[in-house]
Amino acid sequence: MKSHVRLGLIGFGTVGSGVAKILQRHADEMNRRCGARLQLAVVCDRSLGSRSGAGLPAGARVTRDWKEVVNDPTLDIVIELIGGYEPARTIVEAALSAGKHVVTANKAILSKHWGELFTLANRHRHLLYFEASVGGGIPVIQALNEGLAANRIERVSGILNGTTNYILTRMEEQGEDFAGALKDAQKAGFAEADPTFDVEGIDAAHKIAILASIATGGWVHVQDVYREGISHIEPVDLLMGRERLDSTIKLLGIASWIKSGLEIRVHPALVSRHHPFATVRNEYNAVCVEGDSAGDVILYGKGAGQLPAASAVVSDIIFLARQVVIGTAGEIPYVTYDHSRSPRIVPMEESWYRYYLRLTTTDRPGVLARITGVLARCGVSIASVYQDVKEQHRMSGGVSIVLITHRAREESVQKARHLIDGLTVSRKKMALIRILD
Amino acid sequence: MKSHVRLGLIGFGTVGSGVAKILQRHADEMNRRCGARLQLAVVCDRSLGSRSGAGLPAGARVTRDWKEVVNDPTLDIVIELIGGYEPARTIVEAALSAGKHVVTANKAILSKHWGELFTLANRHRHLLYFEASVGGGIPVIQALNEGLAANRIERVSGILNGTTNYILTRMEEQGEDFAGALKDAQKAGFAEADPTFDVEGIDAAHKIAILASIATGGWVHVQDVYREGISHIEPVDLLMGRERLDSTIKLLGIASWIKSGLEIRVHPALVSRHHPFATVRNEYNAVCVEGDSAGDVILYGKGAGQLPAASAVVSDIIFLARQVVIGTAGEIPYVTYDHSRSPRIVPMEESWYRYYLRLTTTDRPGVLARITGVLARCGVSIASVYQDVKEQHRMSGGVSIVLITHRAREESVQKARHLIDGLTVSRKKMALIRILD
Repeated sequence: MKSHVRLGLIGFGTVGSGVAKILQRHADEMNRRCGARLQLAVVCDRSLGSRSGAGLPAGARVTRDWKEVVNDPTLDIVIELIGGYEPARTIVEAALSAGKHVVTANKAILSKHWGELFTLANRHRHLLYFEASVGGGIPVIQALNEGLAANRIERVSGILNGTTNYILTRMEEQGEDFAGALKDAQKAGFAEADPTFDVEGIDAAHKIAILASIATGGWVHVQDVYREGISHIEPVDLLMGRERLDSTIKLLGIASWIKSGLEIRVHPALVSRHHPFATVRNEYNAVCVEGDSAGDVILYGKGAGQLPAASAVVSDIIFLARQVVIGTAGEIPYVTYDHSRSPRIVPMEESWYRYYLRLTTTDRPGVLARITGVLARCGVSIASVYQDVKEQHRMSGGVSIVLITHRAREESVQKARHLIDGLTVSRKKMALIRILD
Repeated sequence: MKSHVRLGLIGFGTVGSGVAKILQRHADEMNRRCGARLQLAVVCDRSLGSRSGAGLPAGARVTRDWKEVVNDPTLDIVIELIGGYEPARTIVEAALSAGKHVVTANKAILSKHWGELFTLANRHRHLLYFEASVGGGIPVIQALNEGLAANRIERVSGILNGTTNYILTRMEEQGEDFAGALKDAQKAGFAEADPTFDVEGIDAAHKIAILASIATGGWVHVQDVYREGISHIEPVDLLMGRERLDSTIKLLGIASWIKSGLEIRVHPALVSRHHPFATVRNEYNAVCVEGDSAGDVILYGKGAGQLPAASAVVSDIIFLARQVVIGTAGEIPYVTYDHSRSPRIVPMEESWYRYYLRLTTTDRPGVLARITGVLARCGVSIASVYQDVKEQHRMSGGVSIVLITHRAREESVQKARHLIDGLTVSRKKMALIRILD
């Protein structure tokens, strides 16, 4: 049994310094849980000088060259927290090849290189842990990979991005438009100066691809995720949701296993007030896993922030260290990966939803008849029509008509949308939001 | 590496037959995850004949004597699913002593004998897993024990009992009284003929004691849990909650680590509509874990039922089997137990809450002045008073006054309650419900 487990940390930004903080704060407890002393032996960051700075653990060597960490033969575990594609991917691969176990929070490299990374880890019989890559402090990777291991997974859905959830919460609760709510999110530190990655759903797409890969046992490529962001959501839609449809709007990542394959997408959706997702506010995340035995299990918590993410990283370190101590780390892979299990991806056009369609039209007789006629010809049937709300009228600069459809095929709805947008009575392009069932 | 992991199942009731079902249904997937074949080799149940009956796996030996299972040298894992105190405790202890790893769903023996059981397991270097003992299919034990291992736990709270949550949901949504809702629950199969164990909060007390023991690393005795059931909740309270206080009522288990020790209790509480617990309906459970780094993490899912509980049991079997295969099971204990870490229990009188107090009084001038005078003398200050709702008047058979207090000490409130119940203007005993902050 080893008496020490030595860690090398690459990336000493927000999460990295949080990891150092937790390791120091709860040192005795960590050591008790691991059965050995956890030593943060090396810290690497390009912005650090060669001497220990503020927040650096006493006794940790400091370097600006990640190769010194990866090639240090005294280290057991390398923690990669620099984010982005490169050099992160190279670092993780080099560390695994050099006989280190790796903990990472990097959803970008995981979703883009899942197959390569786990093939490499399993070939070297080394472990790659990544709890912090999805859902911040929520132990969702472990729950899906282990706690629900007895289940065939039927669907995974979630509010996976804190920035967009913060923006939608502001829009709903303060009546702000997207641009105003985005500014608030930037002021509050919940959105980047360039928010594209979050508001266009790219971050959420990475995360749902990771969750789907775990559930599948194969590899779901991030580029196969259908993706739509939230910048087209208007206050009138949130108002209609609340006042008429008893619903709110959330950006969801959804992976559904159906007969014809895997449906995997990121888009905004109307969510009933009675669904647990409806109470998920601000920067919180939630993930719902539907298993054939457990039923639906929901995990909820802070999806972002220094300490929640660092909590997930340190939990990974503890599991890994426990196995390092008794010399069994890597004897069984953490994630089972078999390329042949990668599922067929169902094209978006083949999906079925109920839809919220908002049209802005001229105020002339017969408009509704023309629109519903187009929908009928496309095979989209209508469940309800809302045409009478003063606020909506005022806010949308025209006559607003909201239609809720019965379940319809995406392809049919898009065809109808195209035709209706071309009608002379249409004053703006149709707004379309899918409804979560 | 072993090629087979042999299981003995004791107790072939609802959950036991669910376990057999899942093991058969997903045999290939289970074997892939374990790296060996899982074999349900023996099934023991007092009500079984000596031949395989319906639902019994092909090839499994059948016995009515648990000693044959515990003493079978070919078995690796014993699964105890008979429930209750005895012979369950004896079986689990005998199995651990005979060199078996054990999976159990038995919250009664765990909460009553935590210290003895984990001392025994750790001494024999064998593992005792118990995911199904709390929260049905929700992997909450694992999340608290491993996924949040990097955190000092500050509070664990939860809707831990499906029966009482079903009853409270019926009372709220159908306006039924307790007796009517209990009958519905019995009809729907969510309550026993003798519902005491559930409605008096005993089951929830077992579960919060288990969660607190894990979080503490010591042992929290079930008899130290302050306990109050739901049979005194009236429809008027749920109505007041909904109409005036934007709240609902849930039976909660709560463990809070404060400076002076551990507060641990089970009682009904008013929960804001905006709290995620408010959307937990019917037989669903939810657990909120508040860690110093992760913040609040909530897990939600089916708290009862054959397959959810069986899902948790089989997940335990998979973890265990993976370790059995490579020969490392028991090298590190699953739960760390150190008697010296058992916390001081804070007496209920020392706790602080906000309170909902409902009084039924005569309709005379000066009543409110007398009551608020008593509260003031006891040091309980009032945040709001509700005295004007027709329905409440009608439903409670008197003049109803509802008072919401500021935070007050339990001892002071109980003293005031005693004094007010003794006033000549009081027509009934005061109803008291604590408010979740």
